Amino acid sequence: MENIRPLILITNDDSINAPGIHQLADCVRSLGDVYVVAPENPHSGQSAALTVGGPLRITELPSQTDGVRLFTVNGTPVDCVKLALHAIVPRIPDAVFSGINHGSNSGINVTYSGTMGAVLEACMQGIPAVGFSLLHHSLKADFSLSTAFVATIAAQVLAKGLPKGVCLNVNIPAKVIPEGIKVCRATTGHWTDEYKRYLDPMGVPFYWLTGHFVNEEPNAEDTDEYWLKCRYISVVPVSTDQTAKDAIKDLAERFDS
Amino acid sequence: MENIRPLILITNDDSINAPGIHQLADCVRSLGDVYVVAPENPHSGQSAALTVGGPLRITELPSQTDGVRLFTVNGTPVDCVKLALHAIVPRIPDAVFSGINHGSNSGINVTYSGTMGAVLEACMQGIPAVGFSLLHHSLKADFSLSTAFVATIAAQVLAKGLPKGVCLNVNIPAKVIPEGIKVCRATTGHWTDEYKRYLDPMGVPFYWLTGHFVNEEPNAEDTDEYWLKCRYISVVPVSTDQTAKDAIKDLAERFDS
Repeated sequence: MENIRPLILITNDDSINAPGIHQLADCVRSLGDVYVVAPENPHSGQSAALTVGGPLRITELPSQTDGVRLFTVNGTPVDCVKLALHAIVPRIPDAVFSGINHGSNSGINVTYSGTMGAVLEACMQGIPAVGFSLLHHSLKADFSLSTAFVATIAAQVLAKGLPKGVCLNVNIPAKVIPEGIKVCRATTGHWTDEYKRYLDPMGVPFYWLTGHFVNEEPNAEDTDEYWLKCRYISVVPVSTDQTAKDAIKDLAERFDS
Repeated sequence: MENIRPLILITNDDSINAPGIHQLADCVRSLGDVYVVAPENPHSGQSAALTVGGPLRITELPSQTDGVRLFTVNGTPVDCVKLALHAIVPRIPDAVFSGINHGSNSGINVTYSGTMGAVLEACMQGIPAVGFSLLHHSLKADFSLSTAFVATIAAQVLAKGLPKGVCLNVNIPAKVIPEGIKVCRATTGHWTDEYKRYLDPMGVPFYWLTGHFVNEEPNAEDTDEYWLKCRYISVVPVSTDQTAKDAIKDLAERFDS
């Protein structure tokens, strides 16, 4: 019997035009047949948003690489995963990889991340899934220093899967050859929500998001931010179940009736 | 010294035009001063999406009710919370309430929920926060059977707060007087991602999301879906930290290098 090559679905939130997604496809194409299904347009900060009341279209683009097919969807990263599974891939993929994101998704960023929204979607569908992000926002970022690590993690996940209900959020330090890989937890923190205020030509104010991430535990040695500062790749296991189970008992005493 | 009335921020994902948000304001306005800051347009399924690369505007609308001010933002539920905290409310609110959503946010829905996206945002900012959802999609849904419960939960949260990093996802059965309140965990499940396929007038296909939620543990008596079927209001504590901490040790053995 002929061995079937693994089937790999790749998506992102920076769109089909971002170099990161093609780098990711390059990293893993020796491991299986690759379907890239990416948003037509950038969807940073789109979290697990999905299109509930409008039409979605699929467009196949020409691919220059054997074993890699390219598609766009006019929607969010979650739409890409859902519609790929429904109407594009020939069978359930062996893994879904998202990224490589142009910018960090460490710590609390996972909540807002379109990269990780796609990963959580795949995980809820029972497919091993990993999001990759490079700590560099530029579309000209250099991915070459970490591609071997990305390929290693992808091959490991393809070979052994992941625990049920758990996906991985991988962040990669920029501009260095990583020292290694550390599995750790997400740093607790918050964003300072500073908006820059403008006046439009009619004198009416509008606001534009800015601000920065405040790490509430900069010295905690078991966190992703800590290991990224040490030039390691951070791997945070992320659960699809957000229930705060430790809080159930106390809250039941307050609220049950 | 004069007692200061509590300050309550209310938002939703169904927009300022949805009856549910005005029902929620009515339920809690005896408890404090109310600022309603809601999206201009519906944002169901928008999760924790936020506007990262465009302008946001704030518009104040006339209010018919003493102690209730009404504002819209041309963005997502998360934008409403962020911008309200930055530029609308006079001080940090004592609580943020989101809803009442027209439709269920039980089980895995919390991932996609704009209602809960706003709640998670407030929780990350350290503010006690609760999302309320009625299991009925109609804009003509009858909220009157459960308003006393909503007011009770809101008053409890205002009086005693919530554990750090934990917010509440409250779902309310439709068309019945609830039997009571149960604190429980989110049901594990997934959506069947069925899309309806159409051809446009040019013969080009497009897709529209449909499908339904598959409860993977219909008999688990500690889940929200179970208690909702028993006509109880379900209260699920939700964590802002999605790290799957139980998985760290095993995965470290596989990936650390």
